[in-house]
Amino acid sequence: MKLDELYALLRRRGVLWPTAEIYGGAQGLYDYGPLGAALKRRLERAWATWFVGRSPDYYLIEPSEIVPEAVVRASGHLENFTDPEITCEACKSAFRAETVLEKVRPNGIDGLAPSQIEEVVRTHQVHCPNCGSSALAVPEAFNLMFDVPFGVARTERAYLLPETAQASYLAFSRMWEVGRKALPLGVAVVGRAYRNEIAPRQVLFRMRTFTQAELQIFFDPAAPPGRLGPLAAEKVPVLRAERRERGEGSTERVPAADLVAGGLPEFYVEHLVHMLRFLRDVLGYPSERIRFFEKSAQERAFYNRLQFDAEVHLESLGGYKEVAAVHYRGDYDLRRHSEGSGKDLSISRGGPERLVPHVLELTFGVDRNLWALADVHLVRDGERAVWKLPPYLAPVSIGVFPLITKEHRPFAEQLARELLAAGVEAEYDEASSIGKRYARMDEAGTPFCATVDGLTVGAGPEQGTVTLRHRDSRAQERVPSAELAGRLSASLRHPWPPPA
Amino acid sequence: MKLDELYALLRRRGVLWPTAEIYGGAQGLYDYGPLGAALKRRLERAWATWFVGRSPDYYLIEPSEIVPEAVVRASGHLENFTDPEITCEACKSAFRAETVLEKVRPNGIDGLAPSQIEEVVRTHQVHCPNCGSSALAVPEAFNLMFDVPFGVARTERAYLLPETAQASYLAFSRMWEVGRKALPLGVAVVGRAYRNEIAPRQVLFRMRTFTQAELQIFFDPAAPPGRLGPLAAEKVPVLRAERRERGEGSTERVPAADLVAGGLPEFYVEHLVHMLRFLRDVLGYPSERIRFFEKSAQERAFYNRLQFDAEVHLESLGGYKEVAAVHYRGDYDLRRHSEGSGKDLSISRGGPERLVPHVLELTFGVDRNLWALADVHLVRDGERAVWKLPPYLAPVSIGVFPLITKEHRPFAEQLARELLAAGVEAEYDEASSIGKRYARMDEAGTPFCATVDGLTVGAGPEQGTVTLRHRDSRAQERVPSAELAGRLSASLRHPWPPPA
Repeated sequence: MKLDELYALLRRRGVLWPTAEIYGGAQGLYDYGPLGAALKRRLERAWATWFVGRSPDYYLIEPSEIVPEAVVRASGHLENFTDPEITCEACKSAFRAETVLEKVRPNGIDGLAPSQIEEVVRTHQVHCPNCGSSALAVPEAFNLMFDVPFGVARTERAYLLPETAQASYLAFSRMWEVGRKALPLGVAVVGRAYRNEIAPRQVLFRMRTFTQAELQIFFDPAAPPGRLGPLAAEKVPVLRAERRERGEGSTERVPAADLVAGGLPEFYVEHLVHMLRFLRDVLGYPSERIRFFEKSAQERAFYNRLQFDAEVHLESLGGYKEVAAVHYRGDYDLRRHSEGSGKDLSISRGGPERLVPHVLELTFGVDRNLWALADVHLVRDGERAVWKLPPYLAPVSIGVFPLITKEHRPFAEQLARELLAAGVEAEYDEASSIGKRYARMDEAGTPFCATVDGLTVGAGPEQGTVTLRHRDSRAQERVPSAELAGRLSASLRHPWPPPA
Repeated sequence: MKLDELYALLRRRGVLWPTAEIYGGAQGLYDYGPLGAALKRRLERAWATWFVGRSPDYYLIEPSEIVPEAVVRASGHLENFTDPEITCEACKSAFRAETVLEKVRPNGIDGLAPSQIEEVVRTHQVHCPNCGSSALAVPEAFNLMFDVPFGVARTERAYLLPETAQASYLAFSRMWEVGRKALPLGVAVVGRAYRNEIAPRQVLFRMRTFTQAELQIFFDPAAPPGRLGPLAAEKVPVLRAERRERGEGSTERVPAADLVAGGLPEFYVEHLVHMLRFLRDVLGYPSERIRFFEKSAQERAFYNRLQFDAEVHLESLGGYKEVAAVHYRGDYDLRRHSEGSGKDLSISRGGPERLVPHVLELTFGVDRNLWALADVHLVRDGERAVWKLPPYLAPVSIGVFPLITKEHRPFAEQLARELLAAGVEAEYDEASSIGKRYARMDEAGTPFCATVDGLTVGAGPEQGTVTLRHRDSRAQERVPSAELAGRLSASLRHPWPPPA
């Protein structure tokens, strides 16, 4: 679906809407309604199972999203977490430089200093998108963090975290004590991050507060986590930085082993494959719509040695969009926090030798993927809209309907209660025709519906059976109601990750 | 346990610790480690099941925690969400007035204007807690909200929500459309709230960012939600405002029906009882440590018509502490947001008559209750510390141990995997002696442990059985491993709420 159609449907169904909608909304802020909130919880759980569930030495924590200034000074965000902007001296508008220069610099402006951006503006004779004036200026970079100074005099400087990762670095030494005192050690956070975006846009893709799911794997580079093993032949869709620089913009499907042979570390490639499998096998994005976009040394974030962004091609947003990434951050973070805090974060390797652990970061945008799950799986099928979510992600697992409310309600209500007690997310619905109830469940992504009718409550051979209807095939079958929970359990079960 | 002992234990076990601990911590900010984060998730789920699960017309949403200024202006927070402070002109310290005046005004200073507080200071000859000077001043009230202005020039004023409730009021009209268009309609949020506390203290009890679980029930006062029915005889521990004003400070246990006969609305009392049952029957706080503290007209929050704070007596904090509350907010909120937004939030009652729905708010401090769960249930039993959490709240449901690692590991690991697949949170542990493993699990609140030994893997009559050990009684029994999941399921199941 196109953006407008998809967004309208998601709003109407209460999946999401702009924050403070009755006040005209607020740019870059969204609320999740009941379906959206339930889908988000399931998506977060799927992520945690797949990534954190790989190893008993990987832990999920829940840190504060506010940190004192010393933390973001040490991390480099106070200095470097900026977004170049372009202002118009005629109409006083301000824009993200990247947006204004999108057409003349399709690969973005990552790594360019304000003076270099100014040169791009002059060279390409760029005009103000608002008033058309050529009086454009490129001021000093604008820091994207929100500061929330504490205290009566607001003198204790503190910041909303721009990435959850920092909280995991802060927790490293405590987690080292709490855990087995062995590497690799994983510390994961599913939490909020905050950015004062100059120009929020594309719905859930550039928000001012958003949810990240990030796993930081601390490891010894002499014994990095991840061996390809049987995954060596898995084809990874990559767009290498070098090829892009030569002007070749197409994605290659390269066997994982060849990426290693070509110079990428094996542990890194193994995690590209693990991410690929999550996007493809768990979230159900079609293979041909996924690619790993390598950022060059100039383009990547200041802390990264290697950075491949996982992108998905989204019809609603007209192209490939970043939904996750695999970052090799080296020992940058723990080294900086050792210096900043004065606490030695190195660990003993046995003997006098000490090591500042390296970090492999798996980052995942929860909101962006929620949108991608709608873009990819919410489709028109003739008159109806069907959200073909993988069953274990669907907010409601089964709709339970009485065919005739008065006669079949007690049985249907009881069945819904029993399914809930058995851990199956069942929703009872008696409003309007069965056809309309199917349509509502289709839009909500509900994979199954069970209808209670005269045969169910009658004394014949089909007593106690219900009509089980499958969302995608629209197939219907007769199933004893007592067998429902068991019948559904396999498809409602989330795929289990291979061990790390 | 006393505060220091309890806090030290929770830190050591990685339940929680101060944010940015390696930087010396940050006042009023805490991180939850693996055990704390898991307990918090279970507590939130228990809350949602008990309160939101009462009715299919009650919904859980996940809104943004940032709102534009117009919202907090309409809600009254811009004007009224203040905390009187006292400053010392000698040493320049600033304090919460309530803290400084604790001894001379044990019932607090809610509702007092700065000039009245100044009078209290003079009358009681209060001195600076820091330097002892009597040169104390009471400046104009200090607003507790954090502002996070948007945009390059930071001109779009926005605020971190001081209570999640506001997000539910903003969502009312959208939820009315999404739901059945009928009252009562419930909108719940489990999310962050933010307060620039002048003097954060008492660990999780006065934080700068914290998690609230709040259910707003929108209803027609002509048909309010909640009938006492069989709960009429339930005794509610109350401390009425009127009695306190007469100087009688003891809690009475009053049958619910008598509270109604005494003038409290039946729907309100029914929700006091529902809250009482959650604290007592689900969270396991002993009856005699719970009380409902009624705030007088002068003491209660500016939007409330009725306010009873649910308090629990905590040894670690030396007295009764508020952990939840039941607020009858009338039509204040929707009326204010109607005026503020210009959108009519009244609904049709059929015919020309329209109604601005009233709000009953059930609010619950997630962090405070997490602390209370530690205070109440983490006890010394001789040498050992045992966290006697209700089993359905325990982060780990069962520890699975091999008696002799080499010989029994494969069976034990397989058993742990099978339990996980069956939805039982199992943790495999092979480190150190069985006694130490029991002790670790006791501290973590794990209700069951299963040990795999020679009999399990032998060929005798006890083949396949394990030793199941119960945390609280320390009783041990022999159970076939295949029956474990079934045996535990009853005690791991959360008590189901009665319908609304």
